[in-house]
Amino acid sequence: MSAQQRMEQELVDRVVGSFENCGNERLKQVMQSLTQHLHGFIRDVRLTEDEWNAAIAFLTAAGQITDDKRQEFVLLSDVLGASMQVIAVNNESYKDATEATVFGPFFVEDAPEISHGGDIAGDAAGQPCWVEGTVRDTDGNPVPGARIEVWEADEDGLYDVQYLDKRVAGRAHLYADDQGQYAFWGLTPTPYPIPNDGPVGRLLDSVGRSPVRASHLHFMVTAPGLRTLITHIFVEGDPQLEIGDSVFGVKDSLIKKFEVQEAEAPTPDGRDVGSTGWARTRFDVVLAPASV
Amino acid sequence: MSAQQRMEQELVDRVVGSFENCGNERLKQVMQSLTQHLHGFIRDVRLTEDEWNAAIAFLTAAGQITDDKRQEFVLLSDVLGASMQVIAVNNESYKDATEATVFGPFFVEDAPEISHGGDIAGDAAGQPCWVEGTVRDTDGNPVPGARIEVWEADEDGLYDVQYLDKRVAGRAHLYADDQGQYAFWGLTPTPYPIPNDGPVGRLLDSVGRSPVRASHLHFMVTAPGLRTLITHIFVEGDPQLEIGDSVFGVKDSLIKKFEVQEAEAPTPDGRDVGSTGWARTRFDVVLAPASV
Ligand SMILES: [Fe+2]
Ligand SMILES: [Fe+2]
Repeated sequence: MSAQQRMEQELVDRVVGSFENCGNERLKQVMQSLTQHLHGFIRDVRLTEDEWNAAIAFLTAAGQITDDKRQEFVLLSDVLGASMQVIAVNNESYKDATEATVFGPFFVEDAPEISHGGDIAGDAAGQPCWVEGTVRDTDGNPVPGARIEVWEADEDGLYDVQYLDKRVAGRAHLYADDQGQYAFWGLTPTPYPIPNDGPVGRLLDSVGRSPVRASHLHFMVTAPGLRTLITHIFVEGDPQLEIGDSVFGVKDSLIKKFEVQEAEAPTPDGRDVGSTGWARTRFDVVLAPASV
Repeated sequence: MSAQQRMEQELVDRVVGSFENCGNERLKQVMQSLTQHLHGFIRDVRLTEDEWNAAIAFLTAAGQITDDKRQEFVLLSDVLGASMQVIAVNNESYKDATEATVFGPFFVEDAPEISHGGDIAGDAAGQPCWVEGTVRDTDGNPVPGARIEVWEADEDGLYDVQYLDKRVAGRAHLYADDQGQYAFWGLTPTPYPIPNDGPVGRLLDSVGRSPVRASHLHFMVTAPGLRTLITHIFVEGDPQLEIGDSVFGVKDSLIKKFEVQEAEAPTPDGRDVGSTGWARTRFDVVLAPASV
């Protein structure tokens, strides 16, 4: 170890040591590990003072654009895969339980309730899509009454909350029936860019990465005694799956066939969806026990 | 490697791979290393979703308190020792060149010029302190005309820019004379806390760390062909040196004797400094070549 390396390591040790008197053991562990990794990064790349200034300016700009509607730090975490890694370490795979993925910034509490076979679209435009499935536990037992929250963007790639008119569209919640089954009308998902007019968008641009998310439909499924599942389903054949999802949310098990139907094909519930055609998909959900 | 570890590593590899097309090789290297270390941190501590939320809230609060006068992200970097580590990797030790330390947030361009033996205090209150030394290069040659910026807090621990009245006090610049010598009247440095009414202050509080900086006097010394030196001198015997400087700026070579003089002792330049006594110190500066 050179004198320079010793000096750098001595500084790391000093910062780590400064947390030694922290009364909260977990906070101490987190801060000491953060220190090690942060210093490891600076030392590995030999971060220049200009680059450090650029990092400070980046965080400052992210802070300035963040308000109660826009969360640039979450976007940053998302595009660095950090959000997805947090999900990975907190949702360890368990038997055949459905895999989790990123929550995203567009969930809203108290979305309208719909009944079995109801429509979540509201004013949201897009191709009607019948979505059905069964909620089970990892022993294969159906989970009657499981609460299912669903939300998605419209065909222009925008969530209702991204419009200024306070519309509620493309989101709802419903409950699994006595056999654990659910079904609803939604929209065939389409790709959309994450908000990319801020520092995170400029970062993606400068590294040659697409801001676009693979087409998806969000689910959150909750039931007493079972682990809450936050996930998406993705659309098989979506070209963005090849290009790469901008927030690394895709897992193979979550890619589903969306079967496009002839416009005249009869719908499962006899509904007339007009002449634009419709699609259907199936998503069977398996919930892990709450304690794993 | 367990299936869980494989899944986590596969995500890291995917994020690292997403920067593969970056046309700027250096940016690619920095982002890939940042990804590795960020994911390493999340995986090592098994960061919980609550902790991730707390981190996002912390960054958001830091963004909200930051403006053109307050820079919470720099404070954060400082208290994690990151600022000091950046200085370490960019100012590798060279022969007997004077060591660098943190710049801090209180430097101001265009501070008044004083002549040899002039006073930087202005309206700033404190014990008068005679500071003198010689600027040399690492071959021992004096550096006539070296520009010396000095700045410090008053005896209440506040820099001029922390007052609302736009005073300019406790800062100046001067030039080394033909023999590379300089001298000025300043104030004997006193300890002060970094701004601790924001998220960084709350963090220090919750980990049981002092926000106080060891007493110091800032220097920036520049001369053509030589490496710019940004540093401080610290006060031997200051109890905060034992407690720990909140931003890890102390290096043994920068701790100087400040010799307190009797009130009646004649001053070096015959100036009458009143009845409160005065102090003196010596700081000889050695500048490395610009190219190291
Ligand atoms: Fe989404
Ligand atoms: Fe300072």
